[in-house]
Amino acid sequence: MTNPQEQLRQLKKGVEDLISEKELLSRLEKSHKENKPLRVKLGFDPSRPDIHLGHTVVLNKLKQFQDFGHQVVFLIGDFTAQIGDPTGKNETRPALTRAEVSENAKTYAQQVFKILDESKTEIRYNSEWMDKMTPQDIVHLTSQYTVARMLERDDFKKRYAAQQSICVHEFLYPLVQGYDSVALDADVELGGTDQRFNLLVGRDLQKSYGKKQQCVMTLPLLEGLDGVKKMSKSYDNYIGVDDTPREMFGKTMKVSDELMIRYYELLTDKSVEDLQKMKSDLASGVLHPRQAKVRLAQFFITRFHGEKQAKEAEEEFNRIFVDKGVPDDMPEFECPPVDEYWVCKLLTDAGLTASNSEARRMVQSNAVEIRGEKVKDPMIKLKLKLGDEFVAKVGKKKFAKIKVK
Amino acid sequence: MTNPQEQLRQLKKGVEDLISEKELLSRLEKSHKENKPLRVKLGFDPSRPDIHLGHTVVLNKLKQFQDFGHQVVFLIGDFTAQIGDPTGKNETRPALTRAEVSENAKTYAQQVFKILDESKTEIRYNSEWMDKMTPQDIVHLTSQYTVARMLERDDFKKRYAAQQSICVHEFLYPLVQGYDSVALDADVELGGTDQRFNLLVGRDLQKSYGKKQQCVMTLPLLEGLDGVKKMSKSYDNYIGVDDTPREMFGKTMKVSDELMIRYYELLTDKSVEDLQKMKSDLASGVLHPRQAKVRLAQFFITRFHGEKQAKEAEEEFNRIFVDKGVPDDMPEFECPPVDEYWVCKLLTDAGLTASNSEARRMVQSNAVEIRGEKVKDPMIKLKLKLGDEFVAKVGKKKFAKIKVK
Repeated sequence: MTNPQEQLRQLKKGVEDLISEKELLSRLEKSHKENKPLRVKLGFDPSRPDIHLGHTVVLNKLKQFQDFGHQVVFLIGDFTAQIGDPTGKNETRPALTRAEVSENAKTYAQQVFKILDESKTEIRYNSEWMDKMTPQDIVHLTSQYTVARMLERDDFKKRYAAQQSICVHEFLYPLVQGYDSVALDADVELGGTDQRFNLLVGRDLQKSYGKKQQCVMTLPLLEGLDGVKKMSKSYDNYIGVDDTPREMFGKTMKVSDELMIRYYELLTDKSVEDLQKMKSDLASGVLHPRQAKVRLAQFFITRFHGEKQAKEAEEEFNRIFVDKGVPDDMPEFECPPVDEYWVCKLLTDAGLTASNSEARRMVQSNAVEIRGEKVKDPMIKLKLKLGDEFVAKVGKKKFAKIKVK
Repeated sequence: MTNPQEQLRQLKKGVEDLISEKELLSRLEKSHKENKPLRVKLGFDPSRPDIHLGHTVVLNKLKQFQDFGHQVVFLIGDFTAQIGDPTGKNETRPALTRAEVSENAKTYAQQVFKILDESKTEIRYNSEWMDKMTPQDIVHLTSQYTVARMLERDDFKKRYAAQQSICVHEFLYPLVQGYDSVALDADVELGGTDQRFNLLVGRDLQKSYGKKQQCVMTLPLLEGLDGVKKMSKSYDNYIGVDDTPREMFGKTMKVSDELMIRYYELLTDKSVEDLQKMKSDLASGVLHPRQAKVRLAQFFITRFHGEKQAKEAEEEFNRIFVDKGVPDDMPEFECPPVDEYWVCKLLTDAGLTASNSEARRMVQSNAVEIRGEKVKDPMIKLKLKLGDEFVAKVGKKKFAKIKVK
């Protein structure tokens, strides 16, 4: 087992808040001495099963704990998921059935266990203890927090100030999440910085219920591909863990040089020393940003699909974009899935030709390429499937990226 | 059955808020037409079993409903009483056991059924439905109200503004009280003006749960004997329903002339017309305020003890105070219960004599009266029991009221 001081040094890397370093060290020391792993909790909201790289920031940290021999505990918040939002106002929180929760948990697990070791992970559902609570127990739970403290939570504070409604049951959810730490005897709880308040509720409730208090560790929210907003499905600026190798490759190559560094820091297992070297190599020109992005893309694909797929994705990328002299930036044309899309109409719709007849002439003069291959028949019809993404080229200089969504 | 218009006219008497008159009339009409009594709810907090005349303002109104043939429903809030205040801050809300709740309910019932007809009253406990709620049901219940609306409740608003803590569970209690109206299918709920918010929560929740909404009727909070603060045990300005006839008589005789009128209005069954006449008789001098107070005291004693006791109390009062020319106001001397209190020491302690030897001389010269009777033996020892109250007289002009407490 790695010594506690070294564990702490590595665990602190990339962490935003740690409450508190002293407590964590003392826990690590006790764990080391008694050869008893710490219980490290991460909560998961089963109403959002698909994870993207933003979520893996915290998973990487969990992996570190796991590699040090600690017990990772996944808490699946099925109790609240089965309730959803009773007011019906919050569409992102639909009530899930027991079967949907377990289906989503399965989907989530499939993605998560590309990073974590499944055999060493404890999976728990908070309905185990929440369903058993009596109304009296709930009153007791809610008596542990004041209204004023609840209104200190960032989003509540803003909504209250803006006179946007907060329903009373919304105060129950952080308390339930906090009580999960009581029930699980968590030593440490991880979360994004937006979870700070909720994690501290857990810490407080453990004290109220006469348990030892968990350490709280928050990790930064990852910026999305745009480099500005946080990575999120709703902003469409994400790399999904289940994205195809081709998508992962393409999306990674598009990030800015600055964001690439950030992704290296938060999403890979590079040591502080390795990161330093990479930065100086980039600065001196020894390493081209493009090459660094290729490596980053390969890291993601290897982790989530495998080495072979990473290799293939790079080759395909090179074949389409690099070898054919395709520019990194080009106009994009989005269209819905279509079973038969006449190639000439597509070229015109995408703005590559002025008319279908011009398109026909270009095909006939052998000047049209789709997916890196010459189009020979001007009457051909293309089948465009959801998620397809490819380049169309007319003449030597006209390119468009076709995205089917 | 009295016609609905006339019922409304009488029910409106002395009411502070009625939400809404139109709805109540339409309920009364429907009830009359279908010969189906309205369900009229009153909640009772079993942590405070002893009632005083302040509580009877609303009981008198219930009695009116009962006399019109409607169904009075007593809701005993045992669910919350069994929880008490989990924070332990609120000493007036200790957690009660099931047995204590039922004991208090019995005490309460004994007092209440001096006004209401027991055989026509439905008694319910909210644990009937609250204990059956699942945690999901509670979340659903709490989702029906926003934090902002809760903070509109007068006491919450004041405490929040003054940065005094409000625990989250305190938001649950009005919701539970409101849900009781859902469970009971209440047509009308009564309460003091301080209950207005809670009664309206019931109305709102009935709507949320797809039931017809109750009418809300609030009654003024009765002023205590001081005529200023509301009648309350903690201000010691009350007449208890279980006070002895002598206490009732004495306390009633002490109220101001103005307050006497108010008590007539809120605590007796006098009609609007009778009250008018009494006021004009007082103004013209036909009726002496003292006589009006005697009648009021007799009304109370008759209601809570019986006619015989009312007569006796008046006679005793006359014997001690009126016939003996005892003034209404005199100095009071308070002392704890004592098994043997030497009469001379008592007279001196009460300030009626300058020394024990003066007291002895006064007794020997036949100039001392206690409880309206001459004291003949200067060595006599008095047994003073808790609650005793009597007059001591020395000579023709010196009086003191002795109160044992």
